[in-house]
Amino acid sequence: MKKNIPEVEELVRLISKLPGLGPKSAKRIVLKLLNSREELTKPLTNSLAQVYKNIIRCNICGNIKSSNSNCTLQTCSYSDKNYKQICVVENIADMWAIESSGIYKGYYHVLGGTLSTSDNRKTDNLLIPSLVERVKKDTINEVILATSATIEGQTTAHYIQDSLKDTKVKISKLAQGLPVGGEIEFLDDGTLFSAFKNRGPVTND
Amino acid sequence: MKKNIPEVEELVRLISKLPGLGPKSAKRIVLKLLNSREELTKPLTNSLAQVYKNIIRCNICGNIKSSNSNCTLQTCSYSDKNYKQICVVENIADMWAIESSGIYKGYYHVLGGTLSTSDNRKTDNLLIPSLVERVKKDTINEVILATSATIEGQTTAHYIQDSLKDTKVKISKLAQGLPVGGEIEFLDDGTLFSAFKNRGPVTND
Repeated sequence: MKKNIPEVEELVRLISKLPGLGPKSAKRIVLKLLNSREELTKPLTNSLAQVYKNIIRCNICGNIKSSNSNCTLQTCSYSDKNYKQICVVENIADMWAIESSGIYKGYYHVLGGTLSTSDNRKTDNLLIPSLVERVKKDTINEVILATSATIEGQTTAHYIQDSLKDTKVKISKLAQGLPVGGEIEFLDDGTLFSAFKNRGPVTND
Repeated sequence: MKKNIPEVEELVRLISKLPGLGPKSAKRIVLKLLNSREELTKPLTNSLAQVYKNIIRCNICGNIKSSNSNCTLQTCSYSDKNYKQICVVENIADMWAIESSGIYKGYYHVLGGTLSTSDNRKTDNLLIPSLVERVKKDTINEVILATSATIEGQTTAHYIQDSLKDTKVKISKLAQGLPVGGEIEFLDDGTLFSAFKNRGPVTND
């Protein structure tokens, strides 16, 4: 890598910080950008500037939105009389995964992270108070806790459960057990434990 | 992927065009960018804008340079009395590879592509006339053709050899043969053919 063009060096450094990329792939990307100035570098610069300027996190539901419009998806400003549930997720990626599976139709609430058992992470950044407000205000009859099956995710779920105690809303959380295609032989003890603990009666359907 | 935020969608689309990235990794990168607005999105936007604005291709040697300064490396504006050779490469990535190996110290000349045997690609975009000028003007005693060992690369090398006929400069090209670590069993016929054709006497050193 040429050491004498600081602009190019800086761009390689920044791109190599992106998830899944390292110095080598960043260099390849920068070469591509240098060779496609008008087709790629210019629109990408503009697009990034637009996203930086216009896309903000909604401080009610935690989803991203355009700063000059309301949340439009199943989050806070959107209103559908059929929606009686709020699905609480840790981050936007989790919401996208559930949304693209198509198994759930209802509101979402993006916490923006988890509590931590180890480093005493504060609840300040998590949108828990606004969740309580939404549950009180809206015609919600169920809160589905879809936090990860990690210690942090489950701690967060417990904390939310506690915060919602006074609202009398029905609270449920995602089932734990064998993943589809999971072979018993290769599953970890924790998953096996959950699968045994949550076992259900065999039905004939 | 949420369909309702056009800015985010556009950014995913553009990032997925970069080499080595697809829609999934682009989405991951955009999520990271949305979560690191000040630490990453802002500096990356500025850096891209800088590169778009300031980095141009030198129309003499073909290397990239800052538009407000001369080429500083072993290309056209740089002058070193010890440099008597010009190494001709297809693109900047090739120059970087040779440069980082440390095996060559001398000037470079970046063609900006190759001729093509199939689609009658024009020589217009290749910096061959300026190479001839450099060879005539400078105190060069050898031109090393370091184009790829592909049909296009070799065609281009022949074309350059032809163009430099009148200058009487010494022209050489990179050796073809077994790559280091190459096991005979797994080599292709072309490489074996080159290795046999270019075989040399065994010496005792």
